Amino acid sequence: MYRTHNCGELRLANQGQKVTLSGWVQRLRNKGGVVWIDLRDRYGITQLVFEEGRSPAALLAAAKEVGREYVLQVTGTVVERYAKNPKMPTGDIEIRVEELTVLNKSAVPPFMIADETDGGEDLRMKYRYLDIRRNPVKNALLLRHRMLQETRAYLSGQGFIEVETPVLIKSTPEGARDFVVPSRMNPGEFYALPQSPQTFKQLLMVGGIDKYFQLVKCFRDEDLRADRQPEFTQIDCEMSFVEIEDIQQAFEGLIKHLFKQIKGITIDEVPVMTYADALAQYGSDKPDIRFGMKFVELHDVARGKGFKVFDSAELVVGICARGAAGYSRKQLDALTDFVKKPQIGAKGLVYIKYNAEGSFKSSVDKFYTREDLQAIAAKFNARPGDLMLVLSGEAAATRAALNELRLKMGDDLGLRDPNTYKVLWVVDFPLLEWDEETQRYHAMHHPFTSPKKEDMALLDTAPGKVRANAYDMVINGVEVGGGSIRIHDQETQSLMFKHLGFSEAEAKAQFGFLMQAFTYGAPPHGGIAFGFDRLCALFGGSDSIRDYIAFPKNNAGRDVMIDSPSPIAPAQLEELRIRLKNDND
Amino acid sequence: MYRTHNCGELRLANQGQKVTLSGWVQRLRNKGGVVWIDLRDRYGITQLVFEEGRSPAALLAAAKEVGREYVLQVTGTVVERYAKNPKMPTGDIEIRVEELTVLNKSAVPPFMIADETDGGEDLRMKYRYLDIRRNPVKNALLLRHRMLQETRAYLSGQGFIEVETPVLIKSTPEGARDFVVPSRMNPGEFYALPQSPQTFKQLLMVGGIDKYFQLVKCFRDEDLRADRQPEFTQIDCEMSFVEIEDIQQAFEGLIKHLFKQIKGITIDEVPVMTYADALAQYGSDKPDIRFGMKFVELHDVARGKGFKVFDSAELVVGICARGAAGYSRKQLDALTDFVKKPQIGAKGLVYIKYNAEGSFKSSVDKFYTREDLQAIAAKFNARPGDLMLVLSGEAAATRAALNELRLKMGDDLGLRDPNTYKVLWVVDFPLLEWDEETQRYHAMHHPFTSPKKEDMALLDTAPGKVRANAYDMVINGVEVGGGSIRIHDQETQSLMFKHLGFSEAEAKAQFGFLMQAFTYGAPPHGGIAFGFDRLCALFGGSDSIRDYIAFPKNNAGRDVMIDSPSPIAPAQLEELRIRLKNDND
Repeated sequence: MYRTHNCGELRLANQGQKVTLSGWVQRLRNKGGVVWIDLRDRYGITQLVFEEGRSPAALLAAAKEVGREYVLQVTGTVVERYAKNPKMPTGDIEIRVEELTVLNKSAVPPFMIADETDGGEDLRMKYRYLDIRRNPVKNALLLRHRMLQETRAYLSGQGFIEVETPVLIKSTPEGARDFVVPSRMNPGEFYALPQSPQTFKQLLMVGGIDKYFQLVKCFRDEDLRADRQPEFTQIDCEMSFVEIEDIQQAFEGLIKHLFKQIKGITIDEVPVMTYADALAQYGSDKPDIRFGMKFVELHDVARGKGFKVFDSAELVVGICARGAAGYSRKQLDALTDFVKKPQIGAKGLVYIKYNAEGSFKSSVDKFYTREDLQAIAAKFNARPGDLMLVLSGEAAATRAALNELRLKMGDDLGLRDPNTYKVLWVVDFPLLEWDEETQRYHAMHHPFTSPKKEDMALLDTAPGKVRANAYDMVINGVEVGGGSIRIHDQETQSLMFKHLGFSEAEAKAQFGFLMQAFTYGAPPHGGIAFGFDRLCALFGGSDSIRDYIAFPKNNAGRDVMIDSPSPIAPAQLEELRIRLKNDND
Repeated sequence: MYRTHNCGELRLANQGQKVTLSGWVQRLRNKGGVVWIDLRDRYGITQLVFEEGRSPAALLAAAKEVGREYVLQVTGTVVERYAKNPKMPTGDIEIRVEELTVLNKSAVPPFMIADETDGGEDLRMKYRYLDIRRNPVKNALLLRHRMLQETRAYLSGQGFIEVETPVLIKSTPEGARDFVVPSRMNPGEFYALPQSPQTFKQLLMVGGIDKYFQLVKCFRDEDLRADRQPEFTQIDCEMSFVEIEDIQQAFEGLIKHLFKQIKGITIDEVPVMTYADALAQYGSDKPDIRFGMKFVELHDVARGKGFKVFDSAELVVGICARGAAGYSRKQLDALTDFVKKPQIGAKGLVYIKYNAEGSFKSSVDKFYTREDLQAIAAKFNARPGDLMLVLSGEAAATRAALNELRLKMGDDLGLRDPNTYKVLWVVDFPLLEWDEETQRYHAMHHPFTSPKKEDMALLDTAPGKVRANAYDMVINGVEVGGGSIRIHDQETQSLMFKHLGFSEAEAKAQFGFLMQAFTYGAPPHGGIAFGFDRLCALFGGSDSIRDYIAFPKNNAGRDVMIDSPSPIAPAQLEELRIRLKNDND
């Protein structure tokens, strides 16, 4: 037996016990006559002591020989420490070692195995197995483990059935790019890896499995941004015989359960906001509602005063930052620079200070009288001491820019407390969005999303105005999940494919099986999918999903640890009946 | 709201309640003045009644219009039935319908949605979403769901951490054929889908995650046999600081938990048998120990009596079937035909009846005296009334054939009770097996399996005799899982690669990351993987894993429901920088 206890559990109560521990050398202090070794495993650190006079000379000598990250097995007696360490759970005791076995040596690790490491991201990714020994990464994996178990326990308890859907499926050109898998047994043909189990979960509904869930790997061959991974995990769910409210209730329940179990936080209410309101009031379909600072449109009070910038703008809209009138010139310049950054793209920023003593100071004083500014302030419900910030221009771009500014002000003013969690439903998304490049409408969510009945008539006349029975869950400004009530009859589905520019033949080739399934008694159904990596990061208080994935890939889609992807043998290509294309091809 | 109750829960206690149900039409009985509809959902069947005089004429007419598998929503009152059906949980009540909405129509399904269906396997696979409505398939999925939850609950409770390992990994020529995925971002390079997360779980051990598990999809591009799937699910586990006994204890615990929770069966003990004993006593490395009928070798009593077949055979071995001396000539001929089938391959069968009254009758009476037969019978511990069956020939083939005969006799004599479960560990597998085709040794388990220390010296002189620290779990003659204590030091791993015919360069190219990881303090570790599909089938009492997979593929690796694999667009190939090979290439 390699160990009787782990390195995190021994206490004063164990004093006098003979124990065996195994673990890694975190630290060695050699004071000549005394050697202390901190032995580490997943559960904690326990101090070992070897002492001249008490330990045989050979044992003391052996202890001095071990290096960082050596794997040791020791047997000894639990004794009380002279100098206790109240910061360590095992800090009251140490092990007086009687036997020492080096189970494995270690080369000097390429970076410090410590909470604050000297290893850069690239190095840590190459040696991810060493990175995982560090508490921050280990704890992220432990959090993920608990999230996995609690998610399943809750959904199972609610009568959801976990069904594993296939990974080798069929390529569909709609949506993001598929990863494909050549079939050796069917030369010239390919499987695709699922971007989501969407069609399968709908088929399960047709099959009468009225509550389905799965924690499932999904795949998208996209050009990777910093926080995207080619493979990612979804909490994928679907229900039959439900309306939007049933779905919302079910998955508010899930999120509340997770917050309670994982973080001890009670989420009381989950407000519902329309997409239109979210854009109008926050300039974003995923507003952070931990703070107010809602958008105020100023057309009636800011136009017609000779300020051409506002007069000619499609939209004049601002926010009011409470108590920020004291912002210095330098701070205001920095805000202007912020909104003018190319990725935000505003032309400029108008500020109006409502000073504490009641006067106004603005960057547009020459166009606006005190009364004009008073009227604007009234529009904002501003009070003395507040700072109003106004952007103008093309409506969508201006809202988007003001959203960024609002979030920045929220950060600056400490309104985005990472320990506060506000959960929100955003609903009534548009069904379709216009794509300039292809000059046609795309499904905003996916082609199986049902339009609102009352908007169906608009499909022919104003497709962009048709609202969908679609909803997103947003937490602290992060979209953590989304879904919709699906189309469940063949006619509506055909109509949708038509509006998405599918020919009948294309629709049949790609989704014929689903269309056919709908002819055999498909129930009304809907569902949702949560980005599980993102949810873990949110619960862990991190911005990076990569910390919550055991073996992530880099932005080029490479696993630098195993050096993948990689060339394969010519014999493999031959068996698959494919050839690599040369530059000349 | 689509329903207040499901179709399986209403009882006499609900009498008088107004309820809303949704579901599918299982059956309609139209007696003119009265119409009964059996409404079905995942939870059961509830009878609806429409009656002339009590129901409005339009409602009665509408009820008569519905067809099989229509999706209905009904509101009505729970009433006591005149003619109760004690076989149905809801058989005491029916719903007197007041409102009827057809939520969706259905074409006539291509086969009966019933426990015993008229649909052949091909048809049921094409319309798998309809097949899933049938109780046997639905119940198989429900069983699988429970197995999933119980497995995770147990392992979680034991301190195992669920870690998701990547699906897009690296191709390794060792072992079975990989499915590969061309990388668009890295032209000419490929990911591979994992045959198992083997190397990743070992890296997790190096990373200090000392108890890992995952229920994980694995992939093998093999020529499919009836009961193989290109993608399958494993319970994949690994532990650090463990010896074989620790692993056995941990996973006996899992299996006992599953039997207790899922089937209410207590498994008391799990015996351990060596591979050598399993082959010698049962002719199989996965013996069914629900019954004895162990092999008895007869060299000392059956040779030298002038029967050339036995005298010249490498092995003479038999079984004793208790109480089967009454087998008729015809039955014995059938057994002879059985062992002579090409897939079994014996040349013939010798029988010796120990008749109830004490006489012997055998197929070799002219070579053996009564005393000779008595000696043979003594060897078998045979009693009057028993039937001895003896095969001879080349040792391995003869054992394999006798294994088949033993299993058949077990079936014939009712010794393989499907409701009895016997769990067994088979241990001490050979490390290597000789491959005639490539004229070299292959790893019997995989190249990371550790040899037994005491056998290491044989690696150079008699590699085939080296035993591995490997173990299989066998239940009722089915191998449900297997694993090993791994190599955890670089030298032994290098030695192993050498013996498997890897050059240093090959070993480095394929497993360099693992070899490197071993230099940074790899702990002693080992693990196991269970074939989850197989385990579900075993628990469900079925021979076919396909019943326990929601959307299985056929023997050509095709999903006939979605018609996959399929050709992909030329633009996709172009983006991936690959070409299909023509026959001319």
